[in-house]
Amino acid sequence: MITYDPNRDWLRDIRHLGSSWTLVRIARGVLLVGLYASALTALILRFDLEGGRSISGTFSLLGVILGIIMVFRTNTAYERWWEGRKQWGTLVNHSRTLALQLDSLLPPEALDDRSAFARLLGDFALALSGHLRGAVDPSILDRLRADHATDPDDPDPLRGGDGRPVPRAEPPSHVPTLVAGEIIARLQDLRRRGVLDGFDLLATRPHSHGLLDVVGACDRIRRTPIPFSYSVFIKSFILSYAAILPVGLVPEYGYLAVPLVMLIVFALLGLELMAEEIEEPFGLDCNDLPTDTLARSIAADVAGLLRCSSPRSRPAAPKAYSKVF
Amino acid sequence: MITYDPNRDWLRDIRHLGSSWTLVRIARGVLLVGLYASALTALILRFDLEGGRSISGTFSLLGVILGIIMVFRTNTAYERWWEGRKQWGTLVNHSRTLALQLDSLLPPEALDDRSAFARLLGDFALALSGHLRGAVDPSILDRLRADHATDPDDPDPLRGGDGRPVPRAEPPSHVPTLVAGEIIARLQDLRRRGVLDGFDLLATRPHSHGLLDVVGACDRIRRTPIPFSYSVFIKSFILSYAAILPVGLVPEYGYLAVPLVMLIVFALLGLELMAEEIEEPFGLDCNDLPTDTLARSIAADVAGLLRCSSPRSRPAAPKAYSKVF
Amino acid sequence: MITYDPNRDWLRDIRHLGSSWTLVRIARGVLLVGLYASALTALILRFDLEGGRSISGTFSLLGVILGIIMVFRTNTAYERWWEGRKQWGTLVNHSRTLALQLDSLLPPEALDDRSAFARLLGDFALALSGHLRGAVDPSILDRLRADHATDPDDPDPLRGGDGRPVPRAEPPSHVPTLVAGEIIARLQDLRRRGVLDGFDLLATRPHSHGLLDVVGACDRIRRTPIPFSYSVFIKSFILSYAAILPVGLVPEYGYLAVPLVMLIVFALLGLELMAEEIEEPFGLDCNDLPTDTLARSIAADVAGLLRCSSPRSRPAAPKAYSKVF
Amino acid sequence: MITYDPNRDWLRDIRHLGSSWTLVRIARGVLLVGLYASALTALILRFDLEGGRSISGTFSLLGVILGIIMVFRTNTAYERWWEGRKQWGTLVNHSRTLALQLDSLLPPEALDDRSAFARLLGDFALALSGHLRGAVDPSILDRLRADHATDPDDPDPLRGGDGRPVPRAEPPSHVPTLVAGEIIARLQDLRRRGVLDGFDLLATRPHSHGLLDVVGACDRIRRTPIPFSYSVFIKSFILSYAAILPVGLVPEYGYLAVPLVMLIVFALLGLELMAEEIEEPFGLDCNDLPTDTLARSIAADVAGLLRCSSPRSRPAAPKAYSKVF
Amino acid sequence: MITYDPNRDWLRDIRHLGSSWTLVRIARGVLLVGLYASALTALILRFDLEGGRSISGTFSLLGVILGIIMVFRTNTAYERWWEGRKQWGTLVNHSRTLALQLDSLLPPEALDDRSAFARLLGDFALALSGHLRGAVDPSILDRLRADHATDPDDPDPLRGGDGRPVPRAEPPSHVPTLVAGEIIARLQDLRRRGVLDGFDLLATRPHSHGLLDVVGACDRIRRTPIPFSYSVFIKSFILSYAAILPVGLVPEYGYLAVPLVMLIVFALLGLELMAEEIEEPFGLDCNDLPTDTLARSIAADVAGLLRCSSPRSRPAAPKAYSKVF
Repeated sequence: MITYDPNRDWLRDIRHLGSSWTLVRIARGVLLVGLYASALTALILRFDLEGGRSISGTFSLLGVILGIIMVFRTNTAYERWWEGRKQWGTLVNHSRTLALQLDSLLPPEALDDRSAFARLLGDFALALSGHLRGAVDPSILDRLRADHATDPDDPDPLRGGDGRPVPRAEPPSHVPTLVAGEIIARLQDLRRRGVLDGFDLLATRPHSHGLLDVVGACDRIRRTPIPFSYSVFIKSFILSYAAILPVGLVPEYGYLAVPLVMLIVFALLGLELMAEEIEEPFGLDCNDLPTDTLARSIAADVAGLLRCSSPRSRPAAPKAYSKVF
Repeated sequence: MITYDPNRDWLRDIRHLGSSWTLVRIARGVLLVGLYASALTALILRFDLEGGRSISGTFSLLGVILGIIMVFRTNTAYERWWEGRKQWGTLVNHSRTLALQLDSLLPPEALDDRSAFARLLGDFALALSGHLRGAVDPSILDRLRADHATDPDDPDPLRGGDGRPVPRAEPPSHVPTLVAGEIIARLQDLRRRGVLDGFDLLATRPHSHGLLDVVGACDRIRRTPIPFSYSVFIKSFILSYAAILPVGLVPEYGYLAVPLVMLIVFALLGLELMAEEIEEPFGLDCNDLPTDTLARSIAADVAGLLRCSSPRSRPAAPKAYSKVF
Repeated sequence: MITYDPNRDWLRDIRHLGSSWTLVRIARGVLLVGLYASALTALILRFDLEGGRSISGTFSLLGVILGIIMVFRTNTAYERWWEGRKQWGTLVNHSRTLALQLDSLLPPEALDDRSAFARLLGDFALALSGHLRGAVDPSILDRLRADHATDPDDPDPLRGGDGRPVPRAEPPSHVPTLVAGEIIARLQDLRRRGVLDGFDLLATRPHSHGLLDVVGACDRIRRTPIPFSYSVFIKSFILSYAAILPVGLVPEYGYLAVPLVMLIVFALLGLELMAEEIEEPFGLDCNDLPTDTLARSIAADVAGLLRCSSPRSRPAAPKAYSKVF
Repeated sequence: MITYDPNRDWLRDIRHLGSSWTLVRIARGVLLVGLYASALTALILRFDLEGGRSISGTFSLLGVILGIIMVFRTNTAYERWWEGRKQWGTLVNHSRTLALQLDSLLPPEALDDRSAFARLLGDFALALSGHLRGAVDPSILDRLRADHATDPDDPDPLRGGDGRPVPRAEPPSHVPTLVAGEIIARLQDLRRRGVLDGFDLLATRPHSHGLLDVVGACDRIRRTPIPFSYSVFIKSFILSYAAILPVGLVPEYGYLAVPLVMLIVFALLGLELMAEEIEEPFGLDCNDLPTDTLARSIAADVAGLLRCSSPRSRPAAPKAYSKVF
Repeated sequence: MITYDPNRDWLRDIRHLGSSWTLVRIARGVLLVGLYASALTALILRFDLEGGRSISGTFSLLGVILGIIMVFRTNTAYERWWEGRKQWGTLVNHSRTLALQLDSLLPPEALDDRSAFARLLGDFALALSGHLRGAVDPSILDRLRADHATDPDDPDPLRGGDGRPVPRAEPPSHVPTLVAGEIIARLQDLRRRGVLDGFDLLATRPHSHGLLDVVGACDRIRRTPIPFSYSVFIKSFILSYAAILPVGLVPEYGYLAVPLVMLIVFALLGLELMAEEIEEPFGLDCNDLPTDTLARSIAADVAGLLRCSSPRSRPAAPKAYSKVF
């Protein structure tokens, strides 16, 4: 995500225009349409094809309808983006709450339990961030497996149902759920060992189960884009509108139609491209949510709140924006 | 549902236009209106009926009002679709949470309980998917009945109140509720047998009861379409608008009115037909939710999380899209 | 409610137009305005009052503003209707959940308790449906009273605070609350008798208390229409707009103004009348919610889930639509 | 609040137009603007200042933008009003639930406790209604104090922290919180005396704490009007628009501009004044919520549900609408 | 926040226009555009560049689209502001509920515990208010540290995981979480000492954990402005629209174009600047939320409800509005 200080320095903000990939795409699209409109205008004026009829009224009607549709598009895309942000906020809250609650419940000397939960909560956030981008850091699975290597009685969470260990080449598909399962199992284990009683466990449940709700909600946003019909409908509408707009404006405005077409296309195409950018908020687009940063900050927070040193310094992954221009 | 990668390749998306049934319907409707408009225009121009008055201004007003109404229509339809999707996301979350919680509560060797819950949770999702499409796989009922055949003391969930077994020809109407009831009963039974205590049961309640909330919400969306008045009002409005639109545009634009009419009808009819497509999101339309796939994935997930092999490989039902073109 | 299959057969839907009372009202209103507009147009043209000025532009502005206001009106009315439907969905969920939970908690032979709860849950839904329409079936109160006649120690829920029995001519005003109170009291009684323990009771609480929330929310929707100012404002605006619209259009369009006026009034009046129809969703209008059918289906469901025969076959009340045309 | 039967008798509704203070204000404003517009029109036409240019197009644009802004204004005001209504509905629900639950938990002969809770729940609603209008009935404090006079060991809820009784001239500022605190304290006391156990208390908590949430939400709505900038911005915009509107319309319409200006101002000013009326829904405006009536009805309901006679008949306060015209 | 009585005195409200920094910015922007438009108009008219074509129609279209976009902008900004206000309302509710509940649970003579919780709850609100503005009062950390100085066994919440005390120059970054953690730890401690039992603690959990949810939500709002693309897109659109608007209006209106341009820019720029003002509601802008006042009022309330004297009179920080004009 491009972090910026919404500090009202208009000129500075507009100067940074080039640093946003989507804004560059919009500019390209508008220029392309400008070229097309210039060519078409030249053609019409040269061969006197205008026919003397002004049809800009109907184009206004179409433009207003298209504008109304684009706001529907923008609203739904923005809601997805904002809901994605809210889910990550909920994850921060659940992680902190679990950490503070465990801190108050565990005796200060239970360093093993403390560091285990700190590690698991941090790994959960990192696994979720990776899962939503299609690539989970394999060391998370390793750490999960290592836990069980030292505890031979406990069934391995990474085994399938038939008892064979899952080979490394075929990793379980849903790592965040496995980590959350380990957290739930360890909380239950604390009760079995008498560290927590029924009331304590009951109080941690909404937060440990809440982790699964966050995974589910993020998966839902990622996997369900706006229905295909709408996506194609809007693109077709904008394209055909832009294609015949010069025809409609040239008779009345002559060459002045070119900048006007560009400004109208800027408005409509801009809304569409920005909506595309934010409707899938967990990727690596410039305006996508900084899930990786959030996950790292959760891991550090949780370790601090549970009073154990952060388990290992995790080097930040090199920024791999998938969209380069 | 047509799954697509919202990856911004406009041309590719528009090329796949033909694979969406609704888009084909829109194209047909627009062509039909185009033929009608051409005929009417020819008639008006031939017999000089235009009367020399331009009335496109009032048509703009009507078009804007219609556009505003269509956004209301689109918003409500989209909200139903998105709420349906959310309910299925909630189902995924409840299923996973119950599975992970039972995994941590049940002893590793309680294979019977594990496989029973894995089967029931998977069957619940499959029964719900079938129920929402009007046809529940009868093997789900068989499995439910088989449970009770081996346990003669337990009253049969499929009997009516008067003690006679319900004959197969008259299956109980609401299978998902029966499966959820069996899950609730088995959880209670675990407590009776001392495997769970009161606290444990209390922690599973929100999730087992949540299954019933999902059924209820999906039923609500399916059974309550937009009020009949609105449905007819919008259709009548679009039809009469499209019918007299050529009359309004021909005096000013001549034959140019035909493509303009088609573009306006494309906008308004498209919004209506797409709203119709997604307002009942559990059917087999191209953009309906992939509930069957979701249900199968829940069944597989849950079996894995409860560490029992998936009970039986369920062959995917042949894709039976109800709308073919 | 007019139940219809939103199956996209436009012609069939429009053919059933006459079966909706609201659509007939809209048609009447539009015809009336048409007569008025014809008369006014004839007058203006006969006495040459038009003055040669076109004022349709300002009427467009007013029409757009009115259209925007009507969408606000439609949105709030639709939200009330949909919230009403949601509340009844919640009632279905709570009833089923309570039934299934009690089924798992009560021993199979506790037929008295089972049939009592089945009866009470069904009566609650029926009492709510009647209460929202202003007339509760008196047999529900009788059944409630009969319970207490056989149990002389328990204070009568129908007595006032001073100990005198409430005479029949002065029935307690809020029957659904009394039924919910009896459900809550009986659940408490089960605990007193040791059938349920504290944990069990705690798990039923959200659902038994949820019944009261449904009553409260439905009452809120029914008793609080849109503020009086808005109701009058919108009606005055539409009326005065329709009254002077012919004056504005005749100079430009002549007799063509009549159908144009009718179409514009169709749009605005239609939105207002349909909003009026659905904003109070519990009545007997054609598009109101089928609460009576829902209540009967809850009663039958609950009896089945509690494995007791449906207490008595309740004959469907004769359909008494309050609006006949 | 003006209660009216939304029964679709348009003429009757419009006849009662005069009974709404806001509608009278709108009418006054529109008449004033009409006078101003007439004067200005006369001036322009007399001195031939029009300049022959039609500028109604730009005024249409401004009007549409203003219309869009007014819908934002209306939506936020309506949401505040509706949220206020919802909070009072929640209060009704919590009061009834607490009463029914206590009725099932308290032994029938515990008349003191029953009447104490009935009184406190009723007083809470009355105190909240008064608090939101800036004047709490002092007898509520007296009753709260009287409780403690008879129980010298219990610390007085009306004392400050330093032990001195708060003198009457300096009443505690937040009476509803004090009453809610007394309810919470008495529930705890019941547990201390062994009437309720931990489970019972746990089940009453969401409802006793919910009372405080209602207070907080109502306070929030009352104390946080729409940001000052918006309030001034909208007023300035409407005023300047109305001021120059005649200048824009006279060249084209002559004296016809006066009624057109009045109709446009009616739309915009009406939306603003009605939004002002409902955005602070707890006052004594004609369309404000009938909180006093609701509070009295809660007090009566609760006394009935707890089977104790209503403590004292409370005479209805004389209707003191703060806005008389 | 500028507190004002929304009492409908339009003239007085408009007179206070100058006291809002944003309104002054809008006025400045509009004047600037007015100068620019005058210069441009003079240029065009002097050198006869207008070309005789009226293009105000297309500018209307662009204006309407821009208006629609601005409402999206306004809605999202307002929702952020209102959500921020709701979160602080929730904080008030949680603080009061915790105070009243502890008051009923703690024995009257437990003055230490009472004053400790009163101090912590007040400090939490103050720390949150400071944290959201980037500067937490250091005395809060001192008080937290002082607690632990007198209790050598309890690990210091301000130490890092490695046991070294955090030096003062490097204060822990997230003070509100530390205070909340201390509240959670002290509640647990009360149970350990037998003052609260499991049920009591369970009932306080939603409120003590709710404090963390409030922190998380406020942080989310503060740290995630509207996506950068939208911010730049809207600014560029308004700027280029304002830049060429005179070109479009001069041919038709001559010098009259200047006030028209100013009015249109007033509408669009005003919406943008006001949205900027309220979208980050925790700062020190004139219309930002009065979090500091709210925090002080929470501290005083809580002390009163827990019947301990307010710990120390906190002098109000001098009002340091960051924006002076």
